[in-house]
Amino acid sequence: MGKIKLKDIDTRAPKDWDKQDTKDKLVDILAELDELQNLLFAESKHSLLVIVQGMDASGKDGAVRNVFGKLNPQGVLVKSFKAPTAEELSHDFLWRIHTHAPAKGYIQIFNRSQYEDILITRVHKWIDDDTAQARIKAINRFENLLEQHNSTHILKFYLHISPDEQKKRLEERIHNPAKMWKYNEDDFKEAKLWDDYMKMYEDCFENCNDVPWTIVPSDQNWYKEYIIAKAVRDTLKDLKMQYPGLKKK
Amino acid sequence: MGKIKLKDIDTRAPKDWDKQDTKDKLVDILAELDELQNLLFAESKHSLLVIVQGMDASGKDGAVRNVFGKLNPQGVLVKSFKAPTAEELSHDFLWRIHTHAPAKGYIQIFNRSQYEDILITRVHKWIDDDTAQARIKAINRFENLLEQHNSTHILKFYLHISPDEQKKRLEERIHNPAKMWKYNEDDFKEAKLWDDYMKMYEDCFENCNDVPWTIVPSDQNWYKEYIIAKAVRDTLKDLKMQYPGLKKK
Repeated sequence: MGKIKLKDIDTRAPKDWDKQDTKDKLVDILAELDELQNLLFAESKHSLLVIVQGMDASGKDGAVRNVFGKLNPQGVLVKSFKAPTAEELSHDFLWRIHTHAPAKGYIQIFNRSQYEDILITRVHKWIDDDTAQARIKAINRFENLLEQHNSTHILKFYLHISPDEQKKRLEERIHNPAKMWKYNEDDFKEAKLWDDYMKMYEDCFENCNDVPWTIVPSDQNWYKEYIIAKAVRDTLKDLKMQYPGLKKK
Repeated sequence: MGKIKLKDIDTRAPKDWDKQDTKDKLVDILAELDELQNLLFAESKHSLLVIVQGMDASGKDGAVRNVFGKLNPQGVLVKSFKAPTAEELSHDFLWRIHTHAPAKGYIQIFNRSQYEDILITRVHKWIDDDTAQARIKAINRFENLLEQHNSTHILKFYLHISPDEQKKRLEERIHNPAKMWKYNEDDFKEAKLWDDYMKMYEDCFENCNDVPWTIVPSDQNWYKEYIIAKAVRDTLKDLKMQYPGLKKK
């Protein structure tokens, strides 16, 4: 993967992309996903880890709800990683992450993830460069551990929005009663660090790419959801899973 | 580390080694350990992971009790790893191990450990060689993660007994009412695989040696306890810890 410049990547669906057609397709894909998730659970040979990253208001929560929300919750787990607690900070940074790695048969979604430990931490210079480099290495090794030792298939999505779209959404949080609970004054401070965040994300795409990233144009939710659902469906389909027959004693 | 041959390593204290003097020294070392553990807890900068491995009846439980048993249990945790449960088997082999990695300030003892995943599993050919090699690599990386990302100091002890001493101790379990609870008929079957186990341990010493092993002559409990206690004391002392002063706001 060459050096990616997020500025050069569109945050919207390609021109003339048909919205209604895409929404119709999504309905079909979600039906397929439902069946594939059931098969994943029944077979219990593989697991799926879906990492969702993106700037504030890039639509992470919505992606989780609208792509995975109708699947059987028995086999689909969501973990939102917040600022680490004192207990979590007294361990290595992957300790709290590893606990939530998916068991065979499960889909685990990470809303934010280990990547925060090399994103926000570097933007704010809470860690030095040596630590960042060591963490990058440790993250790659960790993802390799899950893939190699537990047949975990990892999908990493970056929800790509424009600064203008972010601004619009953050302001909506001030005015829309149903969104006020998401308002956090720090979000506006963080938004000012946009370029620094983009640099750090670009660095992630370059150096944590053993498991590749999908950059999802996310200014339009319908397109974002379609891209994610399609990628998850394709990954599960490629596993060529089969329902196990009757267990013999 | 050259290729170690366990056969060539004594399972007893050196000749003329003074038993009573050693026991007296142990008392002093344990007093020092008590103070050092308190300091480790107070400072909360480092942690200690003590891995205890060895054949059945090599004295792992006794080592844990007699070296660590008088320390403050608030700061000293023991985890005995048994055969993995169905839930544990549905994750990568390090998942259940990582959960018990020590927090800063703590001493964590592993009575058996991740090493079983490349010992008993290989002796019984439950895993193939590719898997074994991949696990060896993953174990080295895991130990590096703890050391580099959480200032965890790892000590690995192999309790080295002779086959004759093992036989004596296993038979005692049949006759001594206080030891019968430890009796397991499989132990005698496992004992027949002695040479295979030795080969696998030797392979561990050679290939999982980024964090070095201490081979502890363990036919005599007093010597075994002295060697372990001294190594732990020396490691803690080398940390040059200091009590933090009063916290300022």
